[in-house]
Amino acid sequence: MLEKLRAGGKTTVYTRPLARLIEQLQRLPGVGPKTAQRLALHILKRPETEVQALAQALVEAKKQVGFCTQCFHLSAEPVCEICRNSNRDRQTLCVVSDSRDVIALEKTREYQGLYHVLGGVISPMDGIGPEQLHIEPLIRRVSQQQIQEVILAIAPSIEGETTTLYVGQLVKPFTKVTRIAFGLPVGGDLEYADEVTLARALEGRRELQ
Amino acid sequence: MLEKLRAGGKTTVYTRPLARLIEQLQRLPGVGPKTAQRLALHILKRPETEVQALAQALVEAKKQVGFCTQCFHLSAEPVCEICRNSNRDRQTLCVVSDSRDVIALEKTREYQGLYHVLGGVISPMDGIGPEQLHIEPLIRRVSQQQIQEVILAIAPSIEGETTTLYVGQLVKPFTKVTRIAFGLPVGGDLEYADEVTLARALEGRRELQ
Repeated sequence: MLEKLRAGGKTTVYTRPLARLIEQLQRLPGVGPKTAQRLALHILKRPETEVQALAQALVEAKKQVGFCTQCFHLSAEPVCEICRNSNRDRQTLCVVSDSRDVIALEKTREYQGLYHVLGGVISPMDGIGPEQLHIEPLIRRVSQQQIQEVILAIAPSIEGETTTLYVGQLVKPFTKVTRIAFGLPVGGDLEYADEVTLARALEGRRELQ
Repeated sequence: MLEKLRAGGKTTVYTRPLARLIEQLQRLPGVGPKTAQRLALHILKRPETEVQALAQALVEAKKQVGFCTQCFHLSAEPVCEICRNSNRDRQTLCVVSDSRDVIALEKTREYQGLYHVLGGVISPMDGIGPEQLHIEPLIRRVSQQQIQEVILAIAPSIEGETTTLYVGQLVKPFTKVTRIAFGLPVGGDLEYADEVTLARALEGRRELQ
């Protein structure tokens, strides 16, 4: 019942169920052999109910969480909580590439409008064209609903810029289109900011009131 | 279906199954809110079969892995693979405090004897006395079996030293007792070694052959 398992460059022996658990944990991002072993040995020390709870949470999250049919944000229901929230401003759409961007923006507690998750950025290198993203549904929303403003909040990588410009052009005919500001991060130091960021900061300068 | 969840000092919103998964993942050692979110979002992107495999590995490892009745190392059978391995030297016992020490020693591929896992170290502060550890079974093994040498391999903390001395005294009447060497780690630099380690290195000096 032993299994050779690559770990830290050496082959070590674990009893099989432990080896299997370590193997599985190693599939997680940022979890190497050492971390996987530490996690596995920790788990063996926990009460069975707690381990069951973790296993169940994994399966249920995967089973129940899908995408909102309106904004494509992660949701356990056909329409996500944000889209269903009547207190939110339904005339403003914030376009992001990924659900984690929605979560990040929600954490700021600043934004009260709705979202639209593209599900990625245009990247021909990776075979991701506009048709692989949720751009068509966005156009539909913007053309059919009363949208006052579409805020493009896509990180300014080369692919991100392409996506921003592409989506911007398509949405402009229907509504006002803005994009979030790029510049020196708060608490950031000019000395250590890269040229591109500084250039953006200059370009985005505003008159003092 | 939303749940407020403390994360990075801010309360954020996740759809409930996702919130539950993040909560569960945060119970793991070294996993904070940010890592838990990253892991959870990664898991949602994986195929269901893969998530099922992880969940199953968790439950099965917890269910199947217990302790070897002879050496108290982690084992899926009553007697662990090491104790059952007829190629190993059954006259040498290496006494360690934890199963992860067995794994570490096995990785060196240097040791061919058997082990005995105490399950901790004597620590009155934590209410851990000799009776909480597997010391009695060790004495039984040493007194009833043909043991030529007992190697004490317990980390030299205050509790570790106490345990080493305590166990050493009990085992001495039956067999030869040694302890692993402490000193400058290989690749270590005198300049950066702490006084205690250096003192141990001096104390443990050997004549050049």
